[in-house]
Amino acid sequence: MASSILSDCSSSATSRLLPLRRALLAQPCRFLPTTVPAPPRRPLAIAAAQLPLLPRARGMASASAAAAAASSTDSDACAKIIDGKLVAKQIREEIAVEIAKMKDVIGVVPGLAVILVGSRKDSQTYVRNKKKACEAVGIKSYEVNLPEDSSEDEVLKHIATFNSDPSVHGILVQLPLPHHMNDENILNAVSIEKDVDGFHPLNIGRLAMQGRDPFFVPCTPKGCMELLHRYGVEIKGKRAVVIGRSNIVGMPAALLLQKANATVSIVHSNTKKPEEITRQADIVIAAVGVANLVRGSWIKPGAAIIDVGINPVDDPESPRGYRLVGDVCYEEASKIAGLITPVPGGVGPMTIAMLLSNTLESAKRIHKFK
Amino acid sequence: MASSILSDCSSSATSRLLPLRRALLAQPCRFLPTTVPAPPRRPLAIAAAQLPLLPRARGMASASAAAAAASSTDSDACAKIIDGKLVAKQIREEIAVEIAKMKDVIGVVPGLAVILVGSRKDSQTYVRNKKKACEAVGIKSYEVNLPEDSSEDEVLKHIATFNSDPSVHGILVQLPLPHHMNDENILNAVSIEKDVDGFHPLNIGRLAMQGRDPFFVPCTPKGCMELLHRYGVEIKGKRAVVIGRSNIVGMPAALLLQKANATVSIVHSNTKKPEEITRQADIVIAAVGVANLVRGSWIKPGAAIIDVGINPVDDPESPRGYRLVGDVCYEEASKIAGLITPVPGGVGPMTIAMLLSNTLESAKRIHKFK
Repeated sequence: MASSILSDCSSSATSRLLPLRRALLAQPCRFLPTTVPAPPRRPLAIAAAQLPLLPRARGMASASAAAAAASSTDSDACAKIIDGKLVAKQIREEIAVEIAKMKDVIGVVPGLAVILVGSRKDSQTYVRNKKKACEAVGIKSYEVNLPEDSSEDEVLKHIATFNSDPSVHGILVQLPLPHHMNDENILNAVSIEKDVDGFHPLNIGRLAMQGRDPFFVPCTPKGCMELLHRYGVEIKGKRAVVIGRSNIVGMPAALLLQKANATVSIVHSNTKKPEEITRQADIVIAAVGVANLVRGSWIKPGAAIIDVGINPVDDPESPRGYRLVGDVCYEEASKIAGLITPVPGGVGPMTIAMLLSNTLESAKRIHKFK
Repeated sequence: MASSILSDCSSSATSRLLPLRRALLAQPCRFLPTTVPAPPRRPLAIAAAQLPLLPRARGMASASAAAAAASSTDSDACAKIIDGKLVAKQIREEIAVEIAKMKDVIGVVPGLAVILVGSRKDSQTYVRNKKKACEAVGIKSYEVNLPEDSSEDEVLKHIATFNSDPSVHGILVQLPLPHHMNDENILNAVSIEKDVDGFHPLNIGRLAMQGRDPFFVPCTPKGCMELLHRYGVEIKGKRAVVIGRSNIVGMPAALLLQKANATVSIVHSNTKKPEEITRQADIVIAAVGVANLVRGSWIKPGAAIIDVGINPVDDPESPRGYRLVGDVCYEEASKIAGLITPVPGGVGPMTIAMLLSNTLESAKRIHKFK
């Protein structure tokens, strides 16, 4: 349901209480999204090989190119847009090349199985999009659609079949599951070697531990890190704030930033004065699901802002009656930050690209293909 | 080997660069460790029942009593000492009562198996102390001593035997293992239901995730949380800084504070200006292994300081030629903090107490004894 929060966040009450910030915001922002330089395109073979090992430092040349691209319009005092759509497209192309090579050399294509229970329209759309994205890069997709009133045992039976099927390298159970099912039982049944969602607690534990690597990094946080890397954002030694601590985005994103040697703070619903902590951050990942929560005044000038939120807000002018905004007030933040993801078109397109990346990674690991 | 860092940290170079802080430190500190009020003693049955469920909020009465005890000498402007030795003794007594009850009602006593490989003097001492502590509370201890040159398979064989032995409820492999062994393989072989150390990545994953609980909380971080709880330190909504991110203390301590709804930041070797971040914290857990790293100037007045470090520093006046100090410069910090653990006698005694607690918890869970 659409939230009633105004998407024009600069006109809200909070903003009116910040005269100095308003004065700053009153300056015209001259960025033109379509003219923002594209992220550096790394040679496909190298880039694709790096994906499964995220996070790791990019080569200096790549980082410098990105930094040069990122600083090319600094005189505007406007954030550079992180074009997730374009990066996701590049990654899908790199994956397609890798898969074609794998097929040529060892005659194997990665396989992704999706289990959908019930007939939720949104879930059906997600599954259809995943299937389409798989086909486009050469991943074979397998699908099981079960009726809403299926038993947990039926789902577990299909998981067991996919677990032992050598042509399936990734298994994904579309969430949410019907209420009568135990999510934990079902997700834990997915073989750890095929858990391309990376939600298994064993994966999360390995993500948290030094000296261990997870089998898979959860797709959305992996996408956030990939955007930071591809835009040359240095992470080591930087202050990072993650807003939100969900099992699927906030918490693993914090663990990834921590593993990349950032100094990480996690802001959540019990945090007092979240704006003060966020203002200390060189990197902000917002994944809390509250429209326009992060105001311009929360942001350190020049910070890199990754906005994972996708929130519908009322918009009588839109044909649908609503439009989508992030957790960050883009209008304000884009005038303070150094880099920022738009919503839509930022993190969103990265999630499916990272799912494809994880599926390829799994197939390569299982078949020992370098 | 003893470090050459002076334990008298107020006289070191860093302190000399802080004239204002030195002026503050020059004020005499009148606390007398032996007269500090004891922590509130909760009814044994309730207290012991709460242990396995850490962290959770204590009853208001208990918290108030602790707060009253903690604030009784505020006019001294000296931190209250968190007496880990006394708390650990109370916990051991509570555990002994629980075990006696369990034996009476279902005829079962908890069993802890310890596997020691090699003949390191320090490891032998730890194992002996654990055995003694088990005996004192009524836990049956099982011990296997293997020669230094044992094979990994031999260790794994003993783990398998203990995994299937119903009288063993906890298995502990004493670290460090000889270099020719793979720690990860060996620790992962311990049944998750008997991993009383809580080091298994599945345990850590469940600790990190919302809505999941680990089978066991690692002993030292669990001890830190227990000290905070028993001294009535409120955690929810507070700023917490964990210094150090080891798999066995820093990282799980941060996850525990986060699960208790603190706003957590993790400071480590790549953190710039760690003192600025630490100074924002209401709660500090220092677990980095650097003698006297945390100076008085790093500490927010009134903060609760848990010092996990145990570092030997040169001391010609000591018969051993060295003495033990923490990661926190106690002399300075105790004049700024509200509560502080001494070294030794703070967190140290809690670790074995929490191991006993985890072993009891395991036996209760396996035998469904409430």
